[in-house]
Amino acid sequence: MPKVVDHDARREGIADALMALLERDGADHVALRGVAAESGWSTGVLAHYFADKDALLTYAFELVATRAAGRADRRAAAATDPAGAVRALLVECLPLDARRRREARLWFAYLERARGAPAMAAVARRRYDDWTGAVGGALEGAGLGVAEAGEAARELVALVDGLTVQALADPRRLPRPALERALDTALARILGSRHD
Amino acid sequence: MPKVVDHDARREGIADALMALLERDGADHVALRGVAAESGWSTGVLAHYFADKDALLTYAFELVATRAAGRADRRAAAATDPAGAVRALLVECLPLDARRRREARLWFAYLERARGAPAMAAVARRRYDDWTGAVGGALEGAGLGVAEAGEAARELVALVDGLTVQALADPRRLPRPALERALDTALARILGSRHD
Repeated sequence: MPKVVDHDARREGIADALMALLERDGADHVALRGVAAESGWSTGVLAHYFADKDALLTYAFELVATRAAGRADRRAAAATDPAGAVRALLVECLPLDARRRREARLWFAYLERARGAPAMAAVARRRYDDWTGAVGGALEGAGLGVAEAGEAARELVALVDGLTVQALADPRRLPRPALERALDTALARILGSRHD
Repeated sequence: MPKVVDHDARREGIADALMALLERDGADHVALRGVAAESGWSTGVLAHYFADKDALLTYAFELVATRAAGRADRRAAAATDPAGAVRALLVECLPLDARRRREARLWFAYLERARGAPAMAAVARRRYDDWTGAVGGALEGAGLGVAEAGEAARELVALVDGLTVQALADPRRLPRPALERALDTALARILGSRHD
């Protein structure tokens, strides 16, 4: 039988190696050579899949966004009430465990590189639009009007990013319960105001 | 007359050169040698003031925090009502002009380096505690109870950070009016709930 090469699995493996390195060494010290060593592939194989570091970062960013959206959607579908569905779409992006912390480091390393790189910024914009749209839809499902839901969705998505960036820098200041409480306080205020 | 060396002015000049470089080249490409060239001092003079890049980053972070807090306090003191004082302490940290964008880039580059560097994280924690405390105090001045003010302050400070990190990556998605509207919507909801 011919050997079947699973290119997607290779790409994912390389992206996961990038995330492991980012977490261990910080964004300043990540180079393609190190990613190759971490992933177990040669720099030649790596170059076959990714033209440069930005191409790898972009792939990894899309991978993280797709994984997080998949988890969030499953969790939202399993929610027993509309407020639970809203919460599911947000809490899945807080750095509440090792996996989500690793994804979040990649996310913000990507945003840093996207400054001044319009093509990368456009990728991020599309993902933010998708995420904000999903949260807005869930807020409408929970009873908010369209305009109010859109504004609240932008606010909640920014709140999650702010909590995440602060918790990554200093987990001692924002441990897991504090992150969830901050999100839940904001959600209660927004959903509590829907009959105003 | 003996020549008077203003060491603080030199340090500030070097920190400003670091911020200009961060903005131009991104965090990945900033090295002390480049900061020396940008500031007009030799690497020897730079080394006299800052032992390494982290020492310079820490100084610049404290400088940005002090400058922003000074501007915010003056603006809050000039506010004509308690809600305006709360807003002043937050809006001064959004990246609404070139100066604040430059400061914000330094801020988040610092937070990235503070991950896994406890002494740097402690510096950030103190500044966040100060900022959150000031916002909480202003919220109490606007009529919120102590516990509610503390929670809302943490939330607003995270919201400002999230808006900032998103706007830096992609100013097209979050131009100045969108940033101010997001903050004002959150403020209206929080201050509107004070008589619940």
